Amino acid sequence: MYDAPIRDAASQIGETLRRSGTQIYGKCLHLPDRKAIIDILDTLRKLFFPAYFGDAALMTLAPEDYAALLLEPLELQLAQQISLALPENSAADPDELAQDFIAQLPRVQQLLMSDVEALFDGDPAAQNKEEIIFAYPGLYAIFVYRLAHELYLRKVPTIPRIMSEYAHSRTGIDIHPGAAIGSHFFIDHGTGVVVGETTVIGDHVKLYQGVTLGALSPRGGHESLPGKRHPTVENGVTIYSGATILGGDTVIGAGAVVGGNAFLTRSVPAGTRVVIHAPEQTFKTTE
Amino acid sequence: MYDAPIRDAASQIGETLRRSGTQIYGKCLHLPDRKAIIDILDTLRKLFFPAYFGDAALMTLAPEDYAALLLEPLELQLAQQISLALPENSAADPDELAQDFIAQLPRVQQLLMSDVEALFDGDPAAQNKEEIIFAYPGLYAIFVYRLAHELYLRKVPTIPRIMSEYAHSRTGIDIHPGAAIGSHFFIDHGTGVVVGETTVIGDHVKLYQGVTLGALSPRGGHESLPGKRHPTVENGVTIYSGATILGGDTVIGAGAVVGGNAFLTRSVPAGTRVVIHAPEQTFKTTE
Amino acid sequence: MYDAPIRDAASQIGETLRRSGTQIYGKCLHLPDRKAIIDILDTLRKLFFPAYFGDAALMTLAPEDYAALLLEPLELQLAQQISLALPENSAADPDELAQDFIAQLPRVQQLLMSDVEALFDGDPAAQNKEEIIFAYPGLYAIFVYRLAHELYLRKVPTIPRIMSEYAHSRTGIDIHPGAAIGSHFFIDHGTGVVVGETTVIGDHVKLYQGVTLGALSPRGGHESLPGKRHPTVENGVTIYSGATILGGDTVIGAGAVVGGNAFLTRSVPAGTRVVIHAPEQTFKTTE
Amino acid sequence: MYDAPIRDAASQIGETLRRSGTQIYGKCLHLPDRKAIIDILDTLRKLFFPAYFGDAALMTLAPEDYAALLLEPLELQLAQQISLALPENSAADPDELAQDFIAQLPRVQQLLMSDVEALFDGDPAAQNKEEIIFAYPGLYAIFVYRLAHELYLRKVPTIPRIMSEYAHSRTGIDIHPGAAIGSHFFIDHGTGVVVGETTVIGDHVKLYQGVTLGALSPRGGHESLPGKRHPTVENGVTIYSGATILGGDTVIGAGAVVGGNAFLTRSVPAGTRVVIHAPEQTFKTTE
Amino acid sequence: MYDAPIRDAASQIGETLRRSGTQIYGKCLHLPDRKAIIDILDTLRKLFFPAYFGDAALMTLAPEDYAALLLEPLELQLAQQISLALPENSAADPDELAQDFIAQLPRVQQLLMSDVEALFDGDPAAQNKEEIIFAYPGLYAIFVYRLAHELYLRKVPTIPRIMSEYAHSRTGIDIHPGAAIGSHFFIDHGTGVVVGETTVIGDHVKLYQGVTLGALSPRGGHESLPGKRHPTVENGVTIYSGATILGGDTVIGAGAVVGGNAFLTRSVPAGTRVVIHAPEQTFKTTE
Amino acid sequence: MYDAPIRDAASQIGETLRRSGTQIYGKCLHLPDRKAIIDILDTLRKLFFPAYFGDAALMTLAPEDYAALLLEPLELQLAQQISLALPENSAADPDELAQDFIAQLPRVQQLLMSDVEALFDGDPAAQNKEEIIFAYPGLYAIFVYRLAHELYLRKVPTIPRIMSEYAHSRTGIDIHPGAAIGSHFFIDHGTGVVVGETTVIGDHVKLYQGVTLGALSPRGGHESLPGKRHPTVENGVTIYSGATILGGDTVIGAGAVVGGNAFLTRSVPAGTRVVIHAPEQTFKTTE
Repeated sequence: MYDAPIRDAASQIGETLRRSGTQIYGKCLHLPDRKAIIDILDTLRKLFFPAYFGDAALMTLAPEDYAALLLEPLELQLAQQISLALPENSAADPDELAQDFIAQLPRVQQLLMSDVEALFDGDPAAQNKEEIIFAYPGLYAIFVYRLAHELYLRKVPTIPRIMSEYAHSRTGIDIHPGAAIGSHFFIDHGTGVVVGETTVIGDHVKLYQGVTLGALSPRGGHESLPGKRHPTVENGVTIYSGATILGGDTVIGAGAVVGGNAFLTRSVPAGTRVVIHAPEQTFKTTE
Repeated sequence: MYDAPIRDAASQIGETLRRSGTQIYGKCLHLPDRKAIIDILDTLRKLFFPAYFGDAALMTLAPEDYAALLLEPLELQLAQQISLALPENSAADPDELAQDFIAQLPRVQQLLMSDVEALFDGDPAAQNKEEIIFAYPGLYAIFVYRLAHELYLRKVPTIPRIMSEYAHSRTGIDIHPGAAIGSHFFIDHGTGVVVGETTVIGDHVKLYQGVTLGALSPRGGHESLPGKRHPTVENGVTIYSGATILGGDTVIGAGAVVGGNAFLTRSVPAGTRVVIHAPEQTFKTTE
Repeated sequence: MYDAPIRDAASQIGETLRRSGTQIYGKCLHLPDRKAIIDILDTLRKLFFPAYFGDAALMTLAPEDYAALLLEPLELQLAQQISLALPENSAADPDELAQDFIAQLPRVQQLLMSDVEALFDGDPAAQNKEEIIFAYPGLYAIFVYRLAHELYLRKVPTIPRIMSEYAHSRTGIDIHPGAAIGSHFFIDHGTGVVVGETTVIGDHVKLYQGVTLGALSPRGGHESLPGKRHPTVENGVTIYSGATILGGDTVIGAGAVVGGNAFLTRSVPAGTRVVIHAPEQTFKTTE
Repeated sequence: MYDAPIRDAASQIGETLRRSGTQIYGKCLHLPDRKAIIDILDTLRKLFFPAYFGDAALMTLAPEDYAALLLEPLELQLAQQISLALPENSAADPDELAQDFIAQLPRVQQLLMSDVEALFDGDPAAQNKEEIIFAYPGLYAIFVYRLAHELYLRKVPTIPRIMSEYAHSRTGIDIHPGAAIGSHFFIDHGTGVVVGETTVIGDHVKLYQGVTLGALSPRGGHESLPGKRHPTVENGVTIYSGATILGGDTVIGAGAVVGGNAFLTRSVPAGTRVVIHAPEQTFKTTE
Repeated sequence: MYDAPIRDAASQIGETLRRSGTQIYGKCLHLPDRKAIIDILDTLRKLFFPAYFGDAALMTLAPEDYAALLLEPLELQLAQQISLALPENSAADPDELAQDFIAQLPRVQQLLMSDVEALFDGDPAAQNKEEIIFAYPGLYAIFVYRLAHELYLRKVPTIPRIMSEYAHSRTGIDIHPGAAIGSHFFIDHGTGVVVGETTVIGDHVKLYQGVTLGALSPRGGHESLPGKRHPTVENGVTIYSGATILGGDTVIGAGAVVGGNAFLTRSVPAGTRVVIHAPEQTFKTTE
Repeated sequence: MYDAPIRDAASQIGETLRRSGTQIYGKCLHLPDRKAIIDILDTLRKLFFPAYFGDAALMTLAPEDYAALLLEPLELQLAQQISLALPENSAADPDELAQDFIAQLPRVQQLLMSDVEALFDGDPAAQNKEEIIFAYPGLYAIFVYRLAHELYLRKVPTIPRIMSEYAHSRTGIDIHPGAAIGSHFFIDHGTGVVVGETTVIGDHVKLYQGVTLGALSPRGGHESLPGKRHPTVENGVTIYSGATILGGDTVIGAGAVVGGNAFLTRSVPAGTRVVIHAPEQTFKTTE
């Protein structure tokens, strides 16, 4: 019924699909729904910042009623997605996991309020907090990270990754859901920021665009997953744009300031300022 | 009516919403509508490049009539968004601001035509101007910047930021609406480019991916907003990928060329070529 | 009929539109439809990874029938877009080009399967292959590149660029459709990666975020298009984050490892490890 | 710029548009928005029958809170549409009219609950009340009529007509918003039912498909609008399918039963049964 | 928090909602989804008339594969809607009911093909069968009836009614799902046709607009549901527009022709022609 | 791969699809697109009544420019649909037919303006002309008829029928595109009105709901299509609700008035008033 070129291509592709078995063809795969997860994030933004993203009509309710109204269906939706994400023989209970996640939200909201403070205090170009909540990619990436992290801690597969990749795609900021990050976290501009899975970050830390907190040599296969592969950044540290800090044993001590484009694979004592001396540069008249 | 976990979470979140008062809960906040602002950008793209983004049926009109047709509702929409963005007690007149903005558009369009020239002349991989107008992220980011800048100059709050974050999200290029940029501006690839609020850029300047034009130490709070915190880049300068140039007093003189990954915190005379000597690198056989 | 400010702006903009002739105004321009091209990419994703993005109902078919079902309309849609992209006096036949493209798909799929392997083997944080296919920006960028490249090879204008800019916008990864890339290609995080038009990359190559494979001095106009302007990266090379490698004669020999933030404008022998010595950095106590 | 046939047609149509002045061309006309009015009807259906058409999440509220939540934005929307419907020099206050309308809703809801009872008691084919609320065109037409009538009584122009024509289009039942109709109203099947503007209908009245309650000779122009042109139907009357009852002085007395296809232009005493003797019919063998 | 008028209306409406208990408020009601049922009808139309309503791409399959492809998800969807429609304590099995329904579809399709024949043979204005399948409301109403009837026979509640009311709304033709109708059924124009629940109709029967096949006196409550309340129409009968035929014992014998506007409450022998003598009409000069 | 019940049903349905050959299965059928035709009707409504249905922004144009703007793409769309409707071997030229249709539009618009007059003059309940243009089903049905008629006259198949059935579905008014209807046509309420293919209607004619202008005995197959099967209604005739007038030789003379529910199969002289004497009716006390 088909032309020869289509028939040929189809039979080869069919062969590849068949050969790789149930993995990429057939109906047994059950995966969370990306659109549903984005909806969950949207609802959570309405929950945390009603005046910015919520429905005006609903804000005639008492705040508690407003919150409950959003939480009830959210719990259900999340449980549904979790049940799609869990492997079939999993002993975990999606309802319990969703409930447990809900219970963390008040704490997450408070952390986010601290992040808003940090962004406002740290960015001289911010005219008001409205702009930060409404339009800062840094806040959006942190918001998504804090939620994905709670699911990661509870060993929910796939969903945290979908969340973090969605934020990555929107903001250029790539924070692994496994990272542990304290309060008053600040990211400005943010494009190119990478924060690895086992990174530990304290309170009041500031990162600028292009900062990498990475592993020293991520060549090892994932079967030999070493414990801690990414650095520790203590309270009050500032890391300027383009700096690269690598290694699981690398500790940037409290209050340290790491200059732009610095490259660190060993620890820095607390209260130190790492001043990068620009690499040798020749100035000559352009032809 | 609700289960205990929801009730508990709701009451805590309600408490947080209540405590931070009208700022994040309640209906008094009035903010521009992000979707409406993206619509305005879309209309402006149709206005400037009709053959690429406009409606074929409308192009049967004389160009003047086509332009007027798009401008009339645009003025209204913009005035509406401006009135949402202005603080309640503002003395500014949204209609006047919108009218004033409209009056700048012919000049903005001419600048954009010069940018198209620059991109075509500067990118050997560009097959034709169609590709540039239709698909280059650099041009899109400059287009949005030039419009946001006109609003910034007229002290319209929030909208310029929404515009620039939208472009940032789509292109990875983050140009603050406050920057002053001349004609024939060129950005290639662009991911990670950051241009700060008080940056001054001349005509015929070229930037490649990952270039930062930033502040020296942006630690100062926004209450102590110093005058000029970002560099000046004179006419005809080229800055290759990954270069970082910091400081309000740093001036890159006309015609200078800054090599990739350069790191500059002091001025460079006109006509100079900054050749970066790669940081010392050891070559040894891999195990 | 219009107010003076609109009339004035309209007449100036009209003048600009008129002066630049048919290029930006009038109805003779025929361009591919960006939305249609994204649809084509979506269909191809359903074709290659049915269990992740396809329609469950259709997977009751034999894999060959499933493939043929998707390929038939796809060929038509692609031919339509190609005919919009070709210049009017082109001798090329859209139907033939589309057919030829279809014939490459089985091979492209196999390359992509090798990329999935590479991503799984190379990222210790990857919990399973599902996550990679479903959510990794690196794989998405490679997927789009491999398809755009086939069109580029067949000299189809504009469409490859629309595809690569779409992927760039979603992932921050900018691979020129002209690059030649072998099997088992690995990109992690990826934001800021730039791979130039004449780059040649072997099999089993790994790139991390912010790597640039660029031209030495792209100042030359596009009329004087030099042959090979971007580096060659041989089999088994790993290039860590932020490294910059420039020049058409620069060859990174097989199995070499280039450290993060390295800056190379000359070749590196096979089996070499380029260890970057961090630029001189002073540690002093912060005030 | 256009072909001759289009130019010719356009100039003639333009002439017609111009000649009929502002009435059909120009931007001064302000009319209610049909879609907004259908939205208002949808909201009212959610208000009256939450379990059938409402949002499950909202039903966790106390019924009073649920109702208030829907009423608040509804009042605003309705006021907006009323202000579009009122002539420009009108002395009426849209906000007051909307508020007054809201105040009638509890009574309207009770009437509708009585109509549900009537439909359930009167239709032997009804399996349960769910079907009636969910799917009976008769109930839908009555629901819309009761709301349109409240606006008609308050002399709101155009909106009642838009409402009744919408119901007419969906159900084939055409009840003029001006008619006065008591409780427990019953319409079965309904296609072709027409109830004129000055009709008066008591409680517990039943109408079947194709019943006309019309004016005797509606030839008179609308300038000579006579007082009452349509019949009065007293409590407990049943009118079977296809019956036509005409005239402002025609009164169908309480409890009367009018047989199918009856044609009445004069009054019928209470408690009477109008048995139509089928028109003379010949029975002959078909060829 | 609300104004007094809203608070008052809300409290009264809340009271009504509360008083009628779970019936119209609360979340325990489970009902089929009207949109899902319309989707099911759309899929069935694609199944029966692929070339008219189906997806061209799918028609490259063998017809059997095409049919199976549509039937598999349809069975699931239908079972889901049936489970929503069944009362909670029902012993019926939704999956079995859906499977049983699927098994009837080949027979239903053949009946519909006979209806297409009948419409083509019976309407001199039909230019071709395409028009009939594509645009005749009569065929659409019969199509929906035949499907709703199969569910009615299997005692599925609510869904048949939703289906028949949807067809009623689109076509003005109201066929109760309980009616039993033979092959080659013909309805022309159709507006106002009513066919009651216990009607029995043979093969090759023709109905024109406004025909009622109704109950004699449907006053009895539904608790006293009498056996057969609507007429029997034998093979080959034609009933012209506006005719009314009432009563469970009324039988229109095979091959009879009932003239337009006839009114019958008693049986008509086979082969009879019922010629209606127009009611006495006076012709006088109009004033 | 499928369960037995699906496999069985699919194979039988497949057999039916296969047996009826290309007629209902396969991809060779080309049919107009219903949605595209509704779009064409919507555009024509915007063309004729801009202030009611058009885009406010466009009404800043001179009326002629407005009209031309809408006509240009409309001609193209219509030609496309006509080419889908014409049989493959047709000698007719879609472009010419579309152009010819466009040329009739000024005349059609003038007829419609006369219909608006007639509706306003004839309906005492009409408050203003706005309501008529905006909301009267009678006007909508006439609008669609007048357009479908022009296509019918030019022997365009299928499209006129799709148009008339769409209007039928929305209004319950079924006017065959073949009917010839003069100016100042008036239909009130309209549900159930049927106007047959060869009907001829003069100027200033009024029809009320449920009027049938039909064929005497439409039993004849369409192969024996008799010339004129439906009545002629001369200038100034009024026909009240429910009247039935049948036969190709039946002429209702100029100025005649036909009473409600009249049944006529023979001609009526000009200036006559047909008063229907209600069929004999007994009045007895209801039990």
